[in-house]
Amino acid sequence: MDLKTAIQTRRSIRRFTTDPIPESAMREALSAAVLAPNSSNTQTWDFHWVRSTEKKAELVKACLSQSAARTAAELLVVTANPANWRRSNSHLIKWVRDVGAPKPVVQYYEKLIPYMYRSGWLNWWGYLRKIGLWFAGWARPVPRGPNTLRDLEEMAIKSAALACENFVLSLAAAGFQTCMMEGFDEHRVRRLLGVSRRDRVVMVIAAGKPQENGTWGPQFRVPMELVVHEV
Amino acid sequence: MDLKTAIQTRRSIRRFTTDPIPESAMREALSAAVLAPNSSNTQTWDFHWVRSTEKKAELVKACLSQSAARTAAELLVVTANPANWRRSNSHLIKWVRDVGAPKPVVQYYEKLIPYMYRSGWLNWWGYLRKIGLWFAGWARPVPRGPNTLRDLEEMAIKSAALACENFVLSLAAAGFQTCMMEGFDEHRVRRLLGVSRRDRVVMVIAAGKPQENGTWGPQFRVPMELVVHEV
Repeated sequence: MDLKTAIQTRRSIRRFTTDPIPESAMREALSAAVLAPNSSNTQTWDFHWVRSTEKKAELVKACLSQSAARTAAELLVVTANPANWRRSNSHLIKWVRDVGAPKPVVQYYEKLIPYMYRSGWLNWWGYLRKIGLWFAGWARPVPRGPNTLRDLEEMAIKSAALACENFVLSLAAAGFQTCMMEGFDEHRVRRLLGVSRRDRVVMVIAAGKPQENGTWGPQFRVPMELVVHEV
Repeated sequence: MDLKTAIQTRRSIRRFTTDPIPESAMREALSAAVLAPNSSNTQTWDFHWVRSTEKKAELVKACLSQSAARTAAELLVVTANPANWRRSNSHLIKWVRDVGAPKPVVQYYEKLIPYMYRSGWLNWWGYLRKIGLWFAGWARPVPRGPNTLRDLEEMAIKSAALACENFVLSLAAAGFQTCMMEGFDEHRVRRLLGVSRRDRVVMVIAAGKPQENGTWGPQFRVPMELVVHEV
């Protein structure tokens, strides 16, 4: 499907039919997800495809039993954890060396990334850096973050969201729709996935074929002039 | 262009040629951006298309003069501010009433949204709610947030990121590429845009035609099995 059509026909669906999604469509959407751009290519995201009947039932409850979750053919939980930079780092160093990237790029992965992803116990290192940048910032432009763990989480969540958009568009192109859910019990979702307390649940995506009454009307956006500004 | 091709050919470009992007391609990409799903459809995002030569030069400096910014044909700054819910709310209430949405949906916009977007001075209300939810969460699944201003910002940034992905894919389909930049001086970017201290700069997107040496090699991702988990 044409990109424009996929974007224009994608809708958040509250009720799905009982039609299944072929495994190939799910795998293709997951492949599309990981092609999204992401912070320094550190790929700090995780995609939990919840397939077991038991876990799915638990997840529906953790999603406050909302109809999109209850009726979904498939459920995907996307988590983000800045600490995942460690998982990718050796791969990334090998990659930039193999492609013969310029020296500053290799050093970026070898030196700057470990420095950037450090916030320290109770963020002491992050706050120290923040203060240092604040002073340096008087004289010249400086990056103002990320400093604290929360800044790093925000960055990881942002990258994961980009991947989620690729995922839902890819399913839309395959004839399925989705609902990106943020109304869930994050503690319970983490527990049922068996992930760490530091894994942030970015969203739970419900997917399937939309029922006829799957939305409560046509799509709506506020006027473009409220949100687009030419400077 | 086909969605799959757009996703597979999109690359983060560090150097652009001097070729311009037609205004129509930029406008179409902005239209695609606002069609992204977003939290409760509150559209708390803003898209600042920086077109004036003077502001562009300032923005390049605020982006630490990185080559993607320096060589870009167009620069877009995407900001997010949870307080923007107020801007959308009357439109949304009118919309759900006009389409005859079920009563709980109308109440959601009339009652729950104003409640949800309240964090209070120094987040006192947010922390109070967080504690309440923690107790309630012992007995049953509860949404654990958003509570504090930072939680609300995180939600707004997540939605804005979804829009950014639509934007870059749309430009890719039109034959242009982009670089999502997070390395910038957030204070200076805010100042040059004349936006409030509460507007969070989600990313600056550089766009144009890629130079031949616009990337430092083929795309790389860590093995799928590291990031995709079947549960």
